[in-house]
Amino acid sequence: MNGVRHQKWWGWGEEGIAFNHRDKPKLAPFVLDRVGIDLHAPGTPPPALSDIAVPASRLGGDLAAVLRGAVGDGHVVVEDEDRLVHTYGKGLADLVRVRAGDLPRVPDVVVYPADEDQVRAVVDTVVAADAVLIPFGGGSNISGSLTPPAAEERTIVSLDLGRMNRVLEVDEAAGLARVQAGVLGPDMEDQLGARGWTMGHQPDSFRHSTLGGWIATRSSGMQSDKYGDIADITRGLRAVLPGKVVVLRPLPSTSSGPSVREMILGSEGRLGVITEAWVNVHRVPENREIIAYLFPSWAAGMAAMQEIASSDATPSVTRVSDANETQFSLSTQKKSKGIKGKVSKALFAVLERRGWDLGNACLSYIGYEGGKDLVRRNKALVGKIVKKHGGISLGTGPGALYDQKKFDTPYIRDFLLDVGGVADVSETAAPWSRLMDVHSGTVRAAQAAFDEIGVKGFIMCHLSHSYHSGACLYFTFAFPPGTTDADAQLEKYWTVKNAVQQSFMDNAATISHHHGVGTDHARWLADDISEAGTDVMVALLRGVDPGRNLNPGTILPPSREW
Amino acid sequence: MNGVRHQKWWGWGEEGIAFNHRDKPKLAPFVLDRVGIDLHAPGTPPPALSDIAVPASRLGGDLAAVLRGAVGDGHVVVEDEDRLVHTYGKGLADLVRVRAGDLPRVPDVVVYPADEDQVRAVVDTVVAADAVLIPFGGGSNISGSLTPPAAEERTIVSLDLGRMNRVLEVDEAAGLARVQAGVLGPDMEDQLGARGWTMGHQPDSFRHSTLGGWIATRSSGMQSDKYGDIADITRGLRAVLPGKVVVLRPLPSTSSGPSVREMILGSEGRLGVITEAWVNVHRVPENREIIAYLFPSWAAGMAAMQEIASSDATPSVTRVSDANETQFSLSTQKKSKGIKGKVSKALFAVLERRGWDLGNACLSYIGYEGGKDLVRRNKALVGKIVKKHGGISLGTGPGALYDQKKFDTPYIRDFLLDVGGVADVSETAAPWSRLMDVHSGTVRAAQAAFDEIGVKGFIMCHLSHSYHSGACLYFTFAFPPGTTDADAQLEKYWTVKNAVQQSFMDNAATISHHHGVGTDHARWLADDISEAGTDVMVALLRGVDPGRNLNPGTILPPSREW
Repeated sequence: MNGVRHQKWWGWGEEGIAFNHRDKPKLAPFVLDRVGIDLHAPGTPPPALSDIAVPASRLGGDLAAVLRGAVGDGHVVVEDEDRLVHTYGKGLADLVRVRAGDLPRVPDVVVYPADEDQVRAVVDTVVAADAVLIPFGGGSNISGSLTPPAAEERTIVSLDLGRMNRVLEVDEAAGLARVQAGVLGPDMEDQLGARGWTMGHQPDSFRHSTLGGWIATRSSGMQSDKYGDIADITRGLRAVLPGKVVVLRPLPSTSSGPSVREMILGSEGRLGVITEAWVNVHRVPENREIIAYLFPSWAAGMAAMQEIASSDATPSVTRVSDANETQFSLSTQKKSKGIKGKVSKALFAVLERRGWDLGNACLSYIGYEGGKDLVRRNKALVGKIVKKHGGISLGTGPGALYDQKKFDTPYIRDFLLDVGGVADVSETAAPWSRLMDVHSGTVRAAQAAFDEIGVKGFIMCHLSHSYHSGACLYFTFAFPPGTTDADAQLEKYWTVKNAVQQSFMDNAATISHHHGVGTDHARWLADDISEAGTDVMVALLRGVDPGRNLNPGTILPPSREW
Repeated sequence: MNGVRHQKWWGWGEEGIAFNHRDKPKLAPFVLDRVGIDLHAPGTPPPALSDIAVPASRLGGDLAAVLRGAVGDGHVVVEDEDRLVHTYGKGLADLVRVRAGDLPRVPDVVVYPADEDQVRAVVDTVVAADAVLIPFGGGSNISGSLTPPAAEERTIVSLDLGRMNRVLEVDEAAGLARVQAGVLGPDMEDQLGARGWTMGHQPDSFRHSTLGGWIATRSSGMQSDKYGDIADITRGLRAVLPGKVVVLRPLPSTSSGPSVREMILGSEGRLGVITEAWVNVHRVPENREIIAYLFPSWAAGMAAMQEIASSDATPSVTRVSDANETQFSLSTQKKSKGIKGKVSKALFAVLERRGWDLGNACLSYIGYEGGKDLVRRNKALVGKIVKKHGGISLGTGPGALYDQKKFDTPYIRDFLLDVGGVADVSETAAPWSRLMDVHSGTVRAAQAAFDEIGVKGFIMCHLSHSYHSGACLYFTFAFPPGTTDADAQLEKYWTVKNAVQQSFMDNAATISHHHGVGTDHARWLADDISEAGTDVMVALLRGVDPGRNLNPGTILPPSREW
């Protein structure tokens, strides 16, 4: 209607695209073995939209009229499917609840402003009406930032930024682009690429997330070692607050007091609506390769990543999977292509020569970008470190495959749900000195949770996003809930998810490295930034939004709402 | 008395150390030519302490008793010299006012807590008594952050962190150190160096500034291209707020909402007292060189710096002076040593070969650190870029000299004051695309201000601190005020200083790249971060400190105080 593409109302990504295991012959046996789920069983597809009872919109006529005046008749939408799409993000709990038609509160209206002036009109209208505003980008959030509070009595307005999707300007002399917040990753890169530029930001959600969403949740992409987190990339921005617009001009660095830029970064809609940003952009690199390596153990792989981080090497991607994730990766290879042949052969040789335990092997991807000389030099530096830690190179073949497939992973959650499996992710960051403990503690915590709920579960992990002082650990867990009842599934899910997050807190790691706080992680906020730090956060949010009109319920634990 | 070393009460640095022009035969003629000041004239030395009438302390007996209970008898000081040292920073206006005995308001007491518990006791005591707290590190601030508001009627307590000066812990596995906020640069580096580590942070103020002061003002050091600004270096911290302690554990990155770390960074005492921080530390590099280059013009030097920033080269220092600063630098060389001989010879050859206009030549320093291969490669990459822009290398001799002398510059302000000259600095940052305009606009603005006040003035500049999208420009200006009356001197000074700062605003640059806001730059806050951004800042500061007990008057313009 207004050209804004949405994800499936019931799951990740575009209609008609799904994860498929049939061309991956080792996956079904692997899943059966590890979590006892039969991928060949008939399964339960998601329900039809007609099976879902979407609560009626509570939008009053007066507010509707003002909103129509603000954004135009065609851009104030109260249809069920549109409101449904704007009710949830794409975390496991979101997927289970939407499939079950569990809809305690649905936005009463979705508005699609065309520009910042219209955003201002909407924000001011919502605050004047004491309604609630939830900004919406690509809808890929997986920490509960998008879901209206179940008990919210006020009118809920979802503000979809999808029409604000243009690269407005490239400052070629400075390597900066001014980009509207509602643009999806591929659309932005297409527009930048046409001018010879790239932002280099590639989160797993890339295809279905927006610049504004990245900023609002402190996103990070797989190439963050080179391009930085979104907090580094975002040099200036505009954000609509009630009655005003914050304008932060692009600056490479500044000492103008507490950073308002860093207050709006990560604000998840609680301070207002980000409408555009000035971001660092780079010339598309001359050369770009991703090389796969194999390490004899997790400890060896981790030690190598740490040594790379403190070396003179400057890779664009650093990533190593633990043994479980390596086994999973190998099981998803297609019949005769890609990593499989090479890995088998290489592993065979390694086994012969060094007596590796293949079950402990850990797959790693390291990315290289830049001039020929830089790429060569970095490969040599990394190669030496890999060798020192007993690793071997598998060449560029598996890396290229990983690079092509890297945005497909989020589809697996829906695929598993179809066949009765629950799967989700939790990620964190900590200093290098803590990462081995974070890993083992979290694996233990998940295992204890699996035992508690009586399931055969699986947890795997990779390190990615290296920094001088630490890195991100990204966990994926899966289990068969043994029930088709949504509430019962979710009870078990939260037992595992919460055990994983609690383990982060117990091991000096953070709530989240790049998924944000939302509602799912809010209960640990004070464990992460201290009770006094939470007080500071409350002072800020309450000072800007005393009426709790802006995405209330996210970031802060319920006890700290005013 | 308590082992805390202070700077001179009347000027920069240690008693007995001063700038001396006698071993720099070209300086006196240069200064006479450019600003008409005769360095050989008798001049006016700073006054004796006994000539200064320090207002009596207003500290009441009750508060004094509680403070003594908090930090111990010997650490509650009401002596004149100590209170005088804590009245001003070291900006030009501070120096003029303290020499003139212009002391509208002096801290009533200086307290020296030994640890965080004592800081807590002091903070809570001050707030309970509705007094005012001004945290004090090395006292090197030059934007007016340390001076009590003239009209402040409440008791003023200066909290000196000088006893909290230890490196508490080094996490060798993570490259992190836990350091007390009151440590001076050299003391910290001595403690780190003894264990083989360095923080790599080298602001001009290094010898007389503290970790806590760097964090509170968003400091940046000359090696920031490699080590980052203090905002990057600071990974965790502890800060005492009224009734509580914010504890932010060290994290390489996090997405836990608006960044409380980035709220305390730059807070200049308005949110509380930073007591310690976790900072990135690095192994002392194997190799370290600074090479000097000479460019035929400012435009050529700037273009080279920009190209280096977007190249594959990773230098630790990038710096280029404009023609005026180059002339000044050449005039400060000693008789037959250092840059002079080489430069003369090289320039002579260049003149012959290329017909350079020596008056336009621009001196540059580029720093290299790391393994032999990295240093060699970076030198080759930079060398090519320098050549492309018509520059020539002067080798390591001048660079080594610059490296030795880099912390001496702040002494010049006092030296010039003695002989009747007013000099100060203003620095900013902007995107690469704006820097030429910032430079020319600021030079023009200063010249117009010199004309307005009827003096022969001089302004010079260097670029330093390169980032992907821009860099810092650092201006130094000087003129003979033509009067010995402090108020008249300051009126002229503010005319020039304000013109320079206004030019930053007019050219899309920021208030300050690394000196902070203080009181001197506060009037431009809304021009920098917008009126709405200032509203956000007020919400934060007011929410945390409703009673305005914490360094009131800094950062915000007076009209925005509550």
